Amino acid sequence: MADIKRKVPIGVIGAGDCSDTEAKLAFEVGQHIALNNAVLICGGLGGVMEMAAQGARAEGGLTVGLLPGFDFSDANPYIDIALPTGLSHARNTLVVRASMALIAVAGSYGTLSEIALALKMGKPVIGLHTWDIGPEIIKAHTAREAVEKALHMVKKQ
Amino acid sequence: MADIKRKVPIGVIGAGDCSDTEAKLAFEVGQHIALNNAVLICGGLGGVMEMAAQGARAEGGLTVGLLPGFDFSDANPYIDIALPTGLSHARNTLVVRASMALIAVAGSYGTLSEIALALKMGKPVIGLHTWDIGPEIIKAHTAREAVEKALHMVKKQ
Amino acid sequence: MADIKRKVPIGVIGAGDCSDTEAKLAFEVGQHIALNNAVLICGGLGGVMEMAAQGARAEGGLTVGLLPGFDFSDANPYIDIALPTGLSHARNTLVVRASMALIAVAGSYGTLSEIALALKMGKPVIGLHTWDIGPEIIKAHTAREAVEKALHMVKKQ
Amino acid sequence: MADIKRKVPIGVIGAGDCSDTEAKLAFEVGQHIALNNAVLICGGLGGVMEMAAQGARAEGGLTVGLLPGFDFSDANPYIDIALPTGLSHARNTLVVRASMALIAVAGSYGTLSEIALALKMGKPVIGLHTWDIGPEIIKAHTAREAVEKALHMVKKQ
Repeated sequence: MADIKRKVPIGVIGAGDCSDTEAKLAFEVGQHIALNNAVLICGGLGGVMEMAAQGARAEGGLTVGLLPGFDFSDANPYIDIALPTGLSHARNTLVVRASMALIAVAGSYGTLSEIALALKMGKPVIGLHTWDIGPEIIKAHTAREAVEKALHMVKKQ
Repeated sequence: MADIKRKVPIGVIGAGDCSDTEAKLAFEVGQHIALNNAVLICGGLGGVMEMAAQGARAEGGLTVGLLPGFDFSDANPYIDIALPTGLSHARNTLVVRASMALIAVAGSYGTLSEIALALKMGKPVIGLHTWDIGPEIIKAHTAREAVEKALHMVKKQ
Repeated sequence: MADIKRKVPIGVIGAGDCSDTEAKLAFEVGQHIALNNAVLICGGLGGVMEMAAQGARAEGGLTVGLLPGFDFSDANPYIDIALPTGLSHARNTLVVRASMALIAVAGSYGTLSEIALALKMGKPVIGLHTWDIGPEIIKAHTAREAVEKALHMVKKQ
Repeated sequence: MADIKRKVPIGVIGAGDCSDTEAKLAFEVGQHIALNNAVLICGGLGGVMEMAAQGARAEGGLTVGLLPGFDFSDANPYIDIALPTGLSHARNTLVVRASMALIAVAGSYGTLSEIALALKMGKPVIGLHTWDIGPEIIKAHTAREAVEKALHMVKKQ
């Protein structure tokens, strides 16, 4: 029998290098995604992406990395499904498209482009210490709150 | 601990509608991909893509669908990780990039574009009753042979 | 003989609908791009994109529209080179890539994604009544000033 | 006044290196595109792409190059509008999308992928000493015949 109830894909976006505080937060976001039986979607590289994947893996979760380059080995070691796209920054669009909701952890201009694309596409964005560009970003203060809000928004859609 | 030994991603390409013989072949290709502990990469829609995913799922395998459109629900019911790309036919390039080797089951012009892109990128293409465009396509006569040849080519790389 | 001195491509980004003030500003930006013998790159649709193309055309300039959809007829009537991409929002990345500098006129989330991508790629962004997301956006107060600053930044590169 | 009658974009596809015979043919194709007041769309690099652009330029035509990489300077010197896409082989899809009909001059696997994508999208493909993959490719024996057939097919659409 086909199982049409797929796991919910939640994107985690953030910079390729991050502070210790942001790393801890990203790890916890990944943990809560896995604990809620969701799938982690991310850009597959280091920093926030790696910490979130490590957190998800720590709780037995599944992790997907949409890589900007050509090599499977560009993925951080906590990515289960490494997808090289060869599209460079256009892969940011894919991270957003492949997620039903996105959690932004801090982040620089790459993350901002993903937040903007998500809002343009009408996808929920939960912000943790990230860009404050308007009321459409749903603020959260803890990783747990961010994941709960993301899943809540997905259910409402 | 990080597990850096990821499952090998094998792409299965073919048309969105197919004959009974091709459907059976695609199902068996999916089965052997799963039995060999590889991950099935495909375009996520019907026909060969659906049959291969159903076969992989039947043996407990993991299936990834890179969709041309915007909706998660475009994926056939045997896809575990549905990735809407919104890129239309440009997603063909992504199916090829995300695979370490590709198995073509019959197929029309869309499949031919993927075969050509794979050969251009230097990725092994195993052909099952598909386009005969040159000696670089490695021919196989059964699903099992196709998957074994695909995995053999990946190991050689 | 080959003429390797191409015209400088300047991107104009902004929303598909805009106020009268923004429309006038976009028109003038297009005029000054043409008067400076540069090529206008834009998303090819209405609003700021159309007004800028109309302004450039009014001064005999050349206009390029990178369209999100599939149809040449999606382009506004002032686009000389209409390029349907079929990539939906991923075409935003192409508008940025195809420009040596970008001028943002007001704009919503789509424009913000382009500004962020441009800054991520290290391309100069001149802002006219647009998102105020940091000091890297070079502010201008008139269309003429914006185009002059854009061309100045390109020459410095 | 807006001029809504744009020039017809005709794509020329072929390999980045080519024989003298193919080079001459590509040059002539470019010439006839310009003489018919159409715009040349191509991949912007060397070989067939460069010779076609040189031919079009020789007759005062306009040439557009959709580049796979990031640098404007990747374009051959006969390209008027150089559009770096940063999409690698996915730019093949864009060359096809941006053309109303395509003329294939010989070519290898990259060209084959473009032929297949064009046929998949229902765009006319005129073949000059190129892949013989089926009756949908309209054969031509001279550059002039190829361009005339391409323009004829566009008018019929």
